[in-house]
Formats: sequence, C-alpha cells, structure tokens
Amino acid sequence: MTINRQIVLNSRPVGAPTLENFRLVESKIPVLAADEVLLRTMYLSLDPYMRGRMSDTPSYAPPVELNAVMVGGTVARVEASNHADFKVGDIVLSFSGWQDYAVANGASLNKLSPTLAQPSIALGALGMPGFTAYMGLLDIGQPKAGETVVVAAASGAVGAIVGQIAKLKGCRVVGIAGGADKCAYVVDELGFDACIDRKNSDFAAQLAAACPAGIDVYFENVGGAVFDAVLPLLNVSARVPVCGLIASYNDSQLPAGPDRMGMLMSTLLKKRIKMQGFIIFDDYGHRYGEFFTAMSEWLAAGKIKFKEDRVDGLENAPAAFIGLLEGKNFGKLVVRVAD
Amino acid sequence: MTINRQIVLNSRPVGAPTLENFRLVESKIPVLAADEVLLRTMYLSLDPYMRGRMSDTPSYAPPVELNAVMVGGTVARVEASNHADFKVGDIVLSFSGWQDYAVANGASLNKLSPTLAQPSIALGALGMPGFTAYMGLLDIGQPKAGETVVVAAASGAVGAIVGQIAKLKGCRVVGIAGGADKCAYVVDELGFDACIDRKNSDFAAQLAAACPAGIDVYFENVGGAVFDAVLPLLNVSARVPVCGLIASYNDSQLPAGPDRMGMLMSTLLKKRIKMQGFIIFDDYGHRYGEFFTAMSEWLAAGKIKFKEDRVDGLENAPAAFIGLLEGKNFGKLVVRVAD
Repeated sequence: MTINRQIVLNSRPVGAPTLENFRLVESKIPVLAADEVLLRTMYLSLDPYMRGRMSDTPSYAPPVELNAVMVGGTVARVEASNHADFKVGDIVLSFSGWQDYAVANGASLNKLSPTLAQPSIALGALGMPGFTAYMGLLDIGQPKAGETVVVAAASGAVGAIVGQIAKLKGCRVVGIAGGADKCAYVVDELGFDACIDRKNSDFAAQLAAACPAGIDVYFENVGGAVFDAVLPLLNVSARVPVCGLIASYNDSQLPAGPDRMGMLMSTLLKKRIKMQGFIIFDDYGHRYGEFFTAMSEWLAAGKIKFKEDRVDGLENAPAAFIGLLEGKNFGKLVVRVAD
Repeated sequence: MTINRQIVLNSRPVGAPTLENFRLVESKIPVLAADEVLLRTMYLSLDPYMRGRMSDTPSYAPPVELNAVMVGGTVARVEASNHADFKVGDIVLSFSGWQDYAVANGASLNKLSPTLAQPSIALGALGMPGFTAYMGLLDIGQPKAGETVVVAAASGAVGAIVGQIAKLKGCRVVGIAGGADKCAYVVDELGFDACIDRKNSDFAAQLAAACPAGIDVYFENVGGAVFDAVLPLLNVSARVPVCGLIASYNDSQLPAGPDRMGMLMSTLLKKRIKMQGFIIFDDYGHRYGEFFTAMSEWLAAGKIKFKEDRVDGLENAPAAFIGLLEGKNFGKLVVRVAD
C-alpha cells in the first residue's frame, strides 16, 4: 500500500493519442498533513474533454503538464483521514486523476450517499455528464413539447441523458450514433424515437427523413460530418448547445476549403439561430443542487436509464481512452481501479 | 398626380448589384377601395437587408419577384383616405417600397406624431434600425457596466445606436468603421471610446490595442475580415448578436479554404460564447413599445444622436443603394422622394 501507481502525460499527441503519450510511474504515498484525506481510487471517469488537456493550445482549462498525472474525476474510498468530516470507509467524489491513491484536502471532496447502489453513477448520470446534459438541453436548448431534438453521440454518457430528458419534456427525439448496435440500444432501451447510424453512406438523407419537421434543438457533441448533415435541417429559431466536438479533437490542422465560417454565420442570421458553448461547472456550478434533485428522482423512478462501459485496471486506462476518442466505448466509460 | 413612378427589380444581381438590376416604370394610381388609404412617399429607407431580397436563395423572407416593386420602409403622407382613422395630411410609417405612391390598408399603417421635428427619424433611430440596435444589444448582448463592447459598421444606422446605448450602460465602446471621417465622427460626435478604421493595413493590431481587456460583446453587422480580427479577441462568455453580414452579401460563392467552420464552433465551445442571429420584428415585435418609450426619452434628452444621409429623388435610389453596400453612405441612408 505504500506504492502509488500513476499514469502521467509522457508526451503531447500530434493527432490521435497513442499509448506512447502515456507512462505509468510508481511513487510513494505522501504523509497526510492536517485536514488531509488519503483516497483509494475505486473508479476513474474517462471523458472526451481530457484530449484537450493533453494539448498545450489555448483552451478553457490549463493543459496537463508533461510528466504530471492525467486529470480526471474519480470515486474513491477514504483510507486515512485527518479531516473531521471524513472517516475511513467513506465513499467520496473527487478529482484525483489517473492514479491508485491521492491525497486531498477534505474541503475539495463530496461525500456520496452510502445508499447509492452503484457509486460510479456519480461519474455519469448523477455527475458531470448528467449535469452537462441537463443544463445544456434545458437552459440553452429550451426544448418545447412537440419540437424535434437531435442528439449527437446519442449512446454516450451525455447524449443518452440529453435524449431521455427531451423525451420527458414531450419532444420528438432523434439520436445519432456510430453503429447499428448503439442505434438499436438508443431506440429500444432509451426510448428515442429514432437513431441514425452516422457510419451509413446515406447518413445525411436518413437524418433528413427522420426529421420531417426539421430540427429545433441540436445538442452538439461531435461536429465534423455529423454537423454538416444537421446544419441544413436546422429550423428558424433553432438552438444549438455546443457541448463537445469530438470529431475534431485530434485534428492538427484545419480541414481543406472552401471556408464555410461565414456560411455558418449567415445561416445563424437568416434562421435566427442561437449557438452557444458551455462548460458545465464554470457556467452552472451554482445550479448543481437543482440538477441533483431532479436526476435522483428520475433515476429512482426508472425514468432515466444509464449504461456504463467498465474497463478493469488503471493500467488499461490509456487504451480505453484512445478507444473512447474512436467511438469504441458503448455507454459511459469508467475504469475500475479497485473495488 | 395620376402617374406613379416605381422602381422594380429588373434582374437578379450576380455579385454586386448594378444599375441594370433596377428599372423605373410608370403606372397609374389605383382607385381606392373601402378602408384603403392613398399614400405619397416622403422618405424611403435604404437598408442592407434589401440585398437579400434581390436574390432568390433561401432566406428569412421571400425574395422580391422580378418586375415587382422593390420593398422598403417609408414615411408617407396621406393623400386620400377611405379609412376612418386616417385623414388627408396625416404622416404615417408604412412599407410602401420604392415608389411615389402606394395604396395601403389602413390597418397596416402607424400614424406618426405631428410633433416629430424630422419624420424620417421613424426610419432610423425611432424605427427599424434603432429597434434592431436596442434589442440586439440589450437582449442578446446583455452588456454589463465595465465590459468592452465592439460595434461593427459603427457610423451606420444600427451601429451608431448600439454604441451609444452601450455607453449609456457604462461599457467601454469601440467602433469599427470604414474611413477616418467616419471614425472621427463616431468618437467625437457619438462619444465612443475609440473607433478603428477597417481600411488600415494594421486594422487587426489596432483593434487588439483598443481592446486591452478583450471583447465581451461584439455586435456583428459586417462579417468577413472584420470578424476575422474580432474572433481572437472574444473573451470567455462573450455574446455575439448577429445582425448583419454586409461583407458577404454580394458573394456568389464561398471563400477559399481552409474551412474554418469547425474552428469557429470550437472557439464558441472553449470560450463558452453565445452567437445568435435575430430578425428584429419577427423576434421582438411584441416589445416595440418598450423600445419606443426608451428611445424617445433618450432622443428628447439628447442622449442619443442620429445622423441621416439624405439622397434626393426616387430615381437616385438604385445608385444610393449600391453605394450603401460599398460603405459610401455616412449615417442612416434615406431617399427624399417628396417634401
């Protein structure tokens, strides 16, 4: 227990990350100071935003430094505590990153209810992805009953929640996902009205056919060719929350022309469309309680379903993360680091 | 008085409009039916949006048909009336288009106060351009005291009002205009903190220097190279009301690459920016009264100044409109059709 395995950023990727961009190192566990807590990582969340942190181009958050531990949300168990609010055995939500153990100030931790059947849900439906879905859809998207909501990456951690909330609000909901198995899950298990496989050669035509009244809200997780198919279908007064653009995260240069930037702006003008980016905790941190109450009720009532894609072993996190960027996960990707 | 001169759309422009796209025709004035009013056009408003109506590509409003009268807002005098609410001599705001006379149903007209010293202001600060500035800035832009507001086409009918309202709200206001004379007017007469000439070779560097704290609200009237200089200066949580894109109205094809559409979306995401198009009467028609009250008070108190660029003679409207698209006007462009 005195050895801490950590996965650090070994080098910055050019294009798609490779295993060589990561390195597993071992270090000793520090001694606890006052108010500090020693955490054993149980679950590590893997999320697309981490690709941005591997690069040092300007973004909304500083990059991970070379040779520093990769960042990430975690569910952890308290192993030792110098903080009055935490005792050994407590389960907490933390931001410990890709490592077995971490020392945290108690003030940075949120204790999870011991009644949670599956504590890793705090990294999914009840955590950052669920909160992202909830606020992006409801606050920026403002869906109204009867409207058509299209959700990119519909089987993913955020998209799956977006679509189910939109169904609860009375919308027609069309998902976009990569693969027939994901599309079947989105319709059969999550209850979307339709789901289009972006890998089909006639994807754009299928999407248009699934949206006979156009698109009123498009929840953007992907960009690239998916957005190209969505753009001509957007209705007057459409809303486009921009949550992620995974199709371009590995791009090291701009795509070839023509330059469609002005065309996009012209479409926003002619159709009076709102397009808005957001970063969940920066923009909506003060409304977490509202989300947590609503989502807890929906989950308890079985109104929102949630699928986890679980990988075993911290050492497998880099390969799992690379697969996430390639769309290989099916559901919210977490690494089980310890039981 | 029985002859009505009309300017009709002779052909659709390819690229910049030319005089050949317009044709002056003469017709008889129709006989009035019940509830109808005969109007003599006094002032015709010329506005950039009219370029869109000359093309038959999809837009927010149907195009002007070939050989139909060009559309436009007008201030007119009642010459004859079959409507109980209007009598000969009343001055009204109408949408009569590019012609000497028009017949209108009384229900479509707004009577102007006889106390208006300059009735053409109903086509400018107190009309569509002022309303556009007011709602785009205040409702979409949401400027806060101390923030930096940048206004494109700052000496134009909309931009001049945007900047003055932003000053009233306590913002640092930087205009962008084409030419030293316009920039001097924007600073010296309208009270903007700075105005940058977009024709300067180091325009982008000058704009950056004038916005040391970045840009919080960018009121977009122009697009093209002006937006290129603005984009890297936008702050986290910036708001971009998209009111017009005059730089590209004459484009018949997309500019050469690379394709920056994804880069724009990525910037919206990373910086959590809201970009929103709007069409004033469609989106905000129900709030006209609020605007009219506020603007009337500001004008009466001398807090908002307004410059008109007046051209004499209906027959000169086509050339004046072509000049408007080239930035040759200085202030709100109106045609004096009759006294």
